[in-house]
Amino acid sequence: MAASETGNRFLETGDLRELLSEKRWLVEEEQFDPGTLNIYETLFTVGNGYLGTRGSLEEGHAAGLPRTFINGLFDHHQSFVVELANTPDWPELHLYVEGIKLGIHECEILDHYRALDMRSGCLFRETRFRDKEGRITRYQSLRYAHWDEKHLCELQVQLTPENYNGVIEVEAPIDANVFNLDLKPAYKDPPTFDPEIRWEKWARSMHLGHVVSEPIEPKGIFLKLETLDRPHHLGYASALEADTDVTEYRRRFQHKRASEVVRLEAKEGEPLRIRKAVAICTSRDLARDQIRPFCEGQLQGSLSHSFLEKFERHRKAWNRLWDACDIIIKGDPEANRAVRFNIYHLLIAANPEDERANIGAKSLSGEGYKGHVFWDTEIFMLPFFIYSRPETARALLKYRYHTMDGAREYARESGYEGVRYPWESADTGHETTPKWTADGSVRIYTGERELHITAAVTYGLLTYVDATGDIDFMLEYGAEMLFGTARFWNSRLEYNESGDRYELTGIEGPDEFHKLVDNNVYTNRLTQWNLNQAADWYQRLQDEFPEKLQALIEKMSLDEQEINSWREKAEKIYIPYDPDRDLIEQFEGYFDLKEVPITEWDENDMPVYPDGYHHDNCEDTKLLKQPDVVMLLYLLPDRFSREVKKANYEYYEKRTMHKSSLSPSIHAIMGVETGNHEKALLYFERSAYVDLNNNQENTEKGIHIASAGGTWQAVVNGFGGMRVKKGRLTFNPWLPPSWEEIRFRIRWQGHNLSVHVEKHRAAFTWAEAADKALMIEVQGDAVELQPGRKVQADIK
Amino acid sequence: MAASETGNRFLETGDLRELLSEKRWLVEEEQFDPGTLNIYETLFTVGNGYLGTRGSLEEGHAAGLPRTFINGLFDHHQSFVVELANTPDWPELHLYVEGIKLGIHECEILDHYRALDMRSGCLFRETRFRDKEGRITRYQSLRYAHWDEKHLCELQVQLTPENYNGVIEVEAPIDANVFNLDLKPAYKDPPTFDPEIRWEKWARSMHLGHVVSEPIEPKGIFLKLETLDRPHHLGYASALEADTDVTEYRRRFQHKRASEVVRLEAKEGEPLRIRKAVAICTSRDLARDQIRPFCEGQLQGSLSHSFLEKFERHRKAWNRLWDACDIIIKGDPEANRAVRFNIYHLLIAANPEDERANIGAKSLSGEGYKGHVFWDTEIFMLPFFIYSRPETARALLKYRYHTMDGAREYARESGYEGVRYPWESADTGHETTPKWTADGSVRIYTGERELHITAAVTYGLLTYVDATGDIDFMLEYGAEMLFGTARFWNSRLEYNESGDRYELTGIEGPDEFHKLVDNNVYTNRLTQWNLNQAADWYQRLQDEFPEKLQALIEKMSLDEQEINSWREKAEKIYIPYDPDRDLIEQFEGYFDLKEVPITEWDENDMPVYPDGYHHDNCEDTKLLKQPDVVMLLYLLPDRFSREVKKANYEYYEKRTMHKSSLSPSIHAIMGVETGNHEKALLYFERSAYVDLNNNQENTEKGIHIASAGGTWQAVVNGFGGMRVKKGRLTFNPWLPPSWEEIRFRIRWQGHNLSVHVEKHRAAFTWAEAADKALMIEVQGDAVELQPGRKVQADIK
Repeated sequence: MAASETGNRFLETGDLRELLSEKRWLVEEEQFDPGTLNIYETLFTVGNGYLGTRGSLEEGHAAGLPRTFINGLFDHHQSFVVELANTPDWPELHLYVEGIKLGIHECEILDHYRALDMRSGCLFRETRFRDKEGRITRYQSLRYAHWDEKHLCELQVQLTPENYNGVIEVEAPIDANVFNLDLKPAYKDPPTFDPEIRWEKWARSMHLGHVVSEPIEPKGIFLKLETLDRPHHLGYASALEADTDVTEYRRRFQHKRASEVVRLEAKEGEPLRIRKAVAICTSRDLARDQIRPFCEGQLQGSLSHSFLEKFERHRKAWNRLWDACDIIIKGDPEANRAVRFNIYHLLIAANPEDERANIGAKSLSGEGYKGHVFWDTEIFMLPFFIYSRPETARALLKYRYHTMDGAREYARESGYEGVRYPWESADTGHETTPKWTADGSVRIYTGERELHITAAVTYGLLTYVDATGDIDFMLEYGAEMLFGTARFWNSRLEYNESGDRYELTGIEGPDEFHKLVDNNVYTNRLTQWNLNQAADWYQRLQDEFPEKLQALIEKMSLDEQEINSWREKAEKIYIPYDPDRDLIEQFEGYFDLKEVPITEWDENDMPVYPDGYHHDNCEDTKLLKQPDVVMLLYLLPDRFSREVKKANYEYYEKRTMHKSSLSPSIHAIMGVETGNHEKALLYFERSAYVDLNNNQENTEKGIHIASAGGTWQAVVNGFGGMRVKKGRLTFNPWLPPSWEEIRFRIRWQGHNLSVHVEKHRAAFTWAEAADKALMIEVQGDAVELQPGRKVQADIK
Repeated sequence: MAASETGNRFLETGDLRELLSEKRWLVEEEQFDPGTLNIYETLFTVGNGYLGTRGSLEEGHAAGLPRTFINGLFDHHQSFVVELANTPDWPELHLYVEGIKLGIHECEILDHYRALDMRSGCLFRETRFRDKEGRITRYQSLRYAHWDEKHLCELQVQLTPENYNGVIEVEAPIDANVFNLDLKPAYKDPPTFDPEIRWEKWARSMHLGHVVSEPIEPKGIFLKLETLDRPHHLGYASALEADTDVTEYRRRFQHKRASEVVRLEAKEGEPLRIRKAVAICTSRDLARDQIRPFCEGQLQGSLSHSFLEKFERHRKAWNRLWDACDIIIKGDPEANRAVRFNIYHLLIAANPEDERANIGAKSLSGEGYKGHVFWDTEIFMLPFFIYSRPETARALLKYRYHTMDGAREYARESGYEGVRYPWESADTGHETTPKWTADGSVRIYTGERELHITAAVTYGLLTYVDATGDIDFMLEYGAEMLFGTARFWNSRLEYNESGDRYELTGIEGPDEFHKLVDNNVYTNRLTQWNLNQAADWYQRLQDEFPEKLQALIEKMSLDEQEINSWREKAEKIYIPYDPDRDLIEQFEGYFDLKEVPITEWDENDMPVYPDGYHHDNCEDTKLLKQPDVVMLLYLLPDRFSREVKKANYEYYEKRTMHKSSLSPSIHAIMGVETGNHEKALLYFERSAYVDLNNNQENTEKGIHIASAGGTWQAVVNGFGGMRVKKGRLTFNPWLPPSWEEIRFRIRWQGHNLSVHVEKHRAAFTWAEAADKALMIEVQGDAVELQPGRKVQADIK
């Protein structure tokens, strides 16, 4: 291939770094530290909701955890439970300068810099390698997963030999010899932090097999793979290009791996440019026989443009995203960067075009929790999507609709009726919570006991419908989900004759320190709410859409008697409460438990376990893992008085260990609401920086994506003070001392509402395109917003 | 490199197969079956006592367990317990025909044949590959670890393109990215036999790091490695040669891996020859700074000869080995092949030049038991070496001498005196038995309880001294070991006042079904023997070598009082025995245990567990895992009457499950002695074929090398009927019906004794070089053998 054929397709600039956005949009790694590579792999994940690729070094290293997860691509095979399958690391690229690999083990690292460009959705890298012969090579790379063309991934590399002439060999593989970490065996010796052997002690789980690889003519390779348990097919088309004289082009076919190899004559001081373009498609997207043609077409469509041209379109798509979703915090640039970092990860976690996938507890950025979907989606992440990207929120809720068959079977298998959503959900709606810890020694009961997930799905559904006014969704999908969940609760509630009340015994609430309790008030109260909402919506449909209701009545065999039962049981659900102290009792008997004060905090201001206590023996104490009553106060904002909220926040907050990343954001929001301002700021920071500071010490396993959603809520619902009360948007803002202003946008009833909060005033602009005025409340006062008009209100 | 430079160094013949020995010396794999590859890897191990290399395919495959173990090279690092470290697989070689790898995953296997040539100590292979383009390549290889030059390993490959011209790329790496299998996690799902993922569920343990790789000029690579815990350094010098036009020669340096790459122009029908020579040395052998010069020198010394010339020397060394060690069985060629197979593996397991290494329970052929040394050495394997290769036996005993410091500490740490040999021994003499099963669920007590190992070491020592007359060894090393072990027993024995006797309570005998017993008769009786032998030898030294004894008395603070105590306690050791039935009771209370008859046998004639029983719940029954009393009857042949032997054999044999590969050989020997001839033959076969037939179903983890030693004893001591009684060689042969004759040689008092047994007579030839006649006994009759004279005796 002559330079003239390809030269024009490449970037004209001499430095990929010039493509980077302003510094405030970057999350940077300033130097090379092998001890933090796994953490940066997580932080530097790029993706587009269709797939996510961790920020591993292209050339790999001994302790690397490269992972590319394709959303919804679950497999079981020999893994402990069904899990999101790891797939080939498309940016993988190996370079040899005169036979010596450019890598962190083989060369000295003179400089190393990486930046996640959140504004443009890409990862930049510059590393200077010196090999043992003294040859210095400057290596730059830029990678991204295209936002508009979700099956296309691109890597551009620029190499500069600083002090030599020589031959550089480039190998660009698609390697299906990949695995998930599966079980971590019981192990008596102390753990190691030697990065080289960090992950060796883990068993591995492979999911890909039946690999067939073929050349694409005149250049490129195609691999067809299959998952070993589920019937997924995957296709990869990959092509390697260079903008200089290629002295040799070869393909190499190995077991479950194919690669292209080129050799380049490198000259001192003259940059070489290499491009690897990869198109990925699975049988979740297309019929099997269409996968290869589609991938080849996608690849050709990419290669007919320069890397820069393709990247430019991607960058524009990201600009549009930020126009809709950005939050601006003036006065605290670090907090602003952190909030954007959380939004960035929310954006790349979900795919509005795929209504059979959802968001795992570690998004697509790591293998923690095996890609399983929890209540994290509806309670923590969904608000961001509802108010910023409602089409994505709709797709996420459709996932719950599509998994309803499994959830129905789950209810039936456990002896109940209706729809019981699984605590951990994968691709079918069946329960996928492992029943045992990895070593087989401890039974895990969360799957059986954390019933509240079912109310969480309902909560997400109705929040979406309230905010969007998407009645069609309710009629087509939502009502069946809502009635199904009510039916489950109706069958699950237990009648206590002596108290003439309904109860839920033998369950577990959000606070997982208490694993087996009766009448967890969070669950009981949301069950009540779920039943009442279902009965109310039944009435509304009867009034407004009787034909639609009739169809559902027939489909579900609903009758008035059942609706009456929902209301009757809801009324009699037991809510443990101490009126003398305004205190809600987390569950029956909680107030009698041992008081163990928290007296110590670590360097991140996180509580330290009192002497002798750990995650597994707080059962008999009042210590909490994460909010439970406080969570409830937040979710039902108009059902509790300010006094009750304040009393309970102050009571429970001091007993909460925050041993869940879901904890701080809620404490930030409720800290603002109850006037505990210092705590609010502290908890916001714990939430916003959870991954950037690795303060849960497990960021290497993936982004705490629920905390990212919680962080968005901490700004919008906490400092912005936004709540929906009786269907109306209300605001009660408060800004931390150093913050001058915050700005954000909300989608409401199909239109934008811009919110701009300063210390002593707030301004609201309702979309010009709206067809009528919007009534909101600011600090309790009604404010009318005319379309296209900015309205200011004083803040006390 | 021009053909003319190297052509003369290569084999002139067109076919490596012509180098193979006669078929009766081969163990053959006739076709390709991925399901048995791991088993053949074990069977086809090549080695020279310095190292052992499993018979893995040179090009690797997904389920391969390539392993090269260097004898004595232990490391701990992150493994569960200290273990023999896996090291680079020196025969590794990758071939690409026009970019497509020649491998079992990438190509169709048209034919596949391998043969372990036991006569020449090498492994031959011929595989015909067809790639997806229809190109057929005939691949032949021959590998060996040089017997005389123990640091040199050689691989010769011959490639014939059957139907194409094209470019073949050859990559010859030394790859230190290797691991041991460590823990197998507890796992609830059924196990898999899918070869691709067979080993994925295991955790891995790396031992090699700090790799530095450099070119050797003008050709070759050198790698320096270190073990991560122990302070071993390793050096590898490797060179790749081809006898044809090499269009390109390159080196490649990657993380912990370096390789040489050549490209060859292949022409249809014309064979290409490739040679990979590797020299290996460690800091166990030489000072660190001498490793590289030595390896380079060794490599150069090899490359200055042709592959064939080097191989020829190796083959001659093996011929000499067989001259000394062969057993000929006429009438049963399969049994003869099997016996030779066992001898072959004994020969490659031990290194007479290394007295700080021993033989692990799986030799150097697999990673079972982590390379740890058990009583297997002294009781099962040592007789072969004592009577065939006494210099090797001496080195094996020196290992026990060198680990005596650790064994002394072990005694002291466990509250006793003297020398307590560890049940599992690695490089220091400290106990290395793991205390828990891999999943942490079951405590392992064999380390604490199987005391009998200490008597086994003494037994091996005195057997050696009896057979060789090597009094120097006794004076320099053995006496200190002997007195040390007596001192241990003396401190360990417990006095039972009511019975006025000495006991050993809370111990475990050879039969591991009964894990915690009092007065295991095997252990008690050998303790008694150990004490008496020590006292007798003390007396002998006092009489014959008073100065030597005096030095020991001072070194060990021995005194007469202690020696008297040895005798007194020995006399009063409790031996449970039922005189009415001539039955020795395996341990106190054994006769009261539940009787559970064995009623079923599998297709290998091995007992099947009675309903409801398994390896872990036979404690309360009379079922045995392996012989215990019968073992004792064998080890002390002149201390029990024929009636006692017969009664006990017949009583215990029918209760023995043989769930140890140590079991059958002893039952064969004692079957002959007690006239249970049918059983003797059956048990011989179970022992001889244990790995060839994989009848313990774990040959993939390594050769049952103790069984190999037992098999040798089954022929020599069983069918040959050889015993040493009161210092004299005695023979009482019996041949199975189909066997016409057996021939073997014994080293006795420094000279050869040839033995030739036929059905009705036996012939003995005492070495011509001997300076005096040898008195032996044949079926109870004394026979005098003059040097160089053959003497025949009738066999009744």
